[in-house]
Amino acid sequence: MPKPHDPLAPYRLAAETELDLVDFDPAAKPCSGGDKAADKREVEALALELDALQNLFYADRRFKLLVVLQGLDTSGKDGTLRGVFGRMSPLGVHTVSWKAPSSAERDHDYLWRIHQQVPAAGEITVFNRSHYEDVLVPLVNGAIDTKQARQRYAQIRDFERLLSETGTVILKFMLHISKDEQRERLQARLDDPEKRWKFQASDLQTRAQWDAYQRAYGRALGATASPWAPWHIVPADSKTHRNLMIARLLKTSLQALPLRYPDLDPALAKLKVQ
Amino acid sequence: MPKPHDPLAPYRLAAETELDLVDFDPAAKPCSGGDKAADKREVEALALELDALQNLFYADRRFKLLVVLQGLDTSGKDGTLRGVFGRMSPLGVHTVSWKAPSSAERDHDYLWRIHQQVPAAGEITVFNRSHYEDVLVPLVNGAIDTKQARQRYAQIRDFERLLSETGTVILKFMLHISKDEQRERLQARLDDPEKRWKFQASDLQTRAQWDAYQRAYGRALGATASPWAPWHIVPADSKTHRNLMIARLLKTSLQALPLRYPDLDPALAKLKVQ
Repeated sequence: MPKPHDPLAPYRLAAETELDLVDFDPAAKPCSGGDKAADKREVEALALELDALQNLFYADRRFKLLVVLQGLDTSGKDGTLRGVFGRMSPLGVHTVSWKAPSSAERDHDYLWRIHQQVPAAGEITVFNRSHYEDVLVPLVNGAIDTKQARQRYAQIRDFERLLSETGTVILKFMLHISKDEQRERLQARLDDPEKRWKFQASDLQTRAQWDAYQRAYGRALGATASPWAPWHIVPADSKTHRNLMIARLLKTSLQALPLRYPDLDPALAKLKVQ
Repeated sequence: MPKPHDPLAPYRLAAETELDLVDFDPAAKPCSGGDKAADKREVEALALELDALQNLFYADRRFKLLVVLQGLDTSGKDGTLRGVFGRMSPLGVHTVSWKAPSSAERDHDYLWRIHQQVPAAGEITVFNRSHYEDVLVPLVNGAIDTKQARQRYAQIRDFERLLSETGTVILKFMLHISKDEQRERLQARLDDPEKRWKFQASDLQTRAQWDAYQRAYGRALGATASPWAPWHIVPADSKTHRNLMIARLLKTSLQALPLRYPDLDPALAKLKVQ
């Protein structure tokens, strides 16, 4: 049960669970004070705080941070990158946009290409889509059955535990939008000549499988939530709220780490450059 | 000879040339109108324009952009990334910070790891240091002689021509600071407890080889300037001017490309999402 003082507890999944996304309202705003302008200011302030934390995280070099952004088309993965991570130095944050695997990638196991892109010491890496596509898409399309999907959930749990045990902090965010909100955003993309190129016919095919994807997401999230790689379900019909919630959760996670500047030779403090 | 109407022409090297960096004043401000606050505002406005151009560049997907930042320690490579590229979406710009090669990388030719990180279609990649370290450092340290260095210049020219002929726009910037300015910046780094960790003993060794590096840079830039991968010498004692000059040159280069949104099925404009 959620603690009364933490409004985000119901959205945090840190252990295997049965899950139905229907129980989560995409229009909820558990982080909002009700004033959109104030929320926006807080997001901007948090983005600057995250920039400072990233700097310390990099200097410390004992941890790695992997952020996973999942969600259906138009759920706001790109917008999160800009709104939450956009004030960090381009040096400090690496993003990987996962697309359909290449022929060479398909010739390996599905985690092979993922493993190559996980963060190194001091790095923050954001996955825009991720290995979760490899258990969602083939399941909905019938390329794998539920038994094979369960095998993959277990493989993913083990893979993420390896990363965690070797110094990686893993935060996974499911950007949860409603079907109505997706229709509006897809339509807006089509109606804007400068954004129309982002539209793909496959977006509508995926939309037609909405219920199947909601079920597949529910199962995948529930099966891969773990203490070492928790999922957060982010109500994302409001873009401002989405950014606010993710930025707050990131800040909390980074502040919970014992980050410090590295120990240096004390003589350095008195050194004069010639 | 420079055209009278282009104050930046003397700083652009687009063909092999004899070059001595002593002829370039690191404190020059060919882009500045003399009002630092106005220059800063222009940098900020240009960074936003570059964000919009990056968006179109990505949509177009016919070109790739490789930006090479070179310069001695504290010359401002990190600051350029933040000041010039910092308003682009983290999705739009990839940075690669080249460090000393790993054992596996040393077992291949020096361009092997570089080639793996060049931009794909629609991508902007910024190299923070680059393959030029492989012709500067070993030459100054005596690991290769001038004959071997000349061989590498030719290899680099050929490599960059390959990239250019296959759709990559290459812009190379040499951030040129004075020895006095470097002393002040290194000292400032040492004096600030939150920045001291950035200081490395090797910084002073490299500084002690200042003249040798200036000569090596002069030769390398002159030998690898080409129409397909020009060098720009950026007077960088002023951080604001450095950003202003690089942002203007980037904007000019991007605007010179025939960028356009891709052709789409006209039916898309009338499509209604269900």
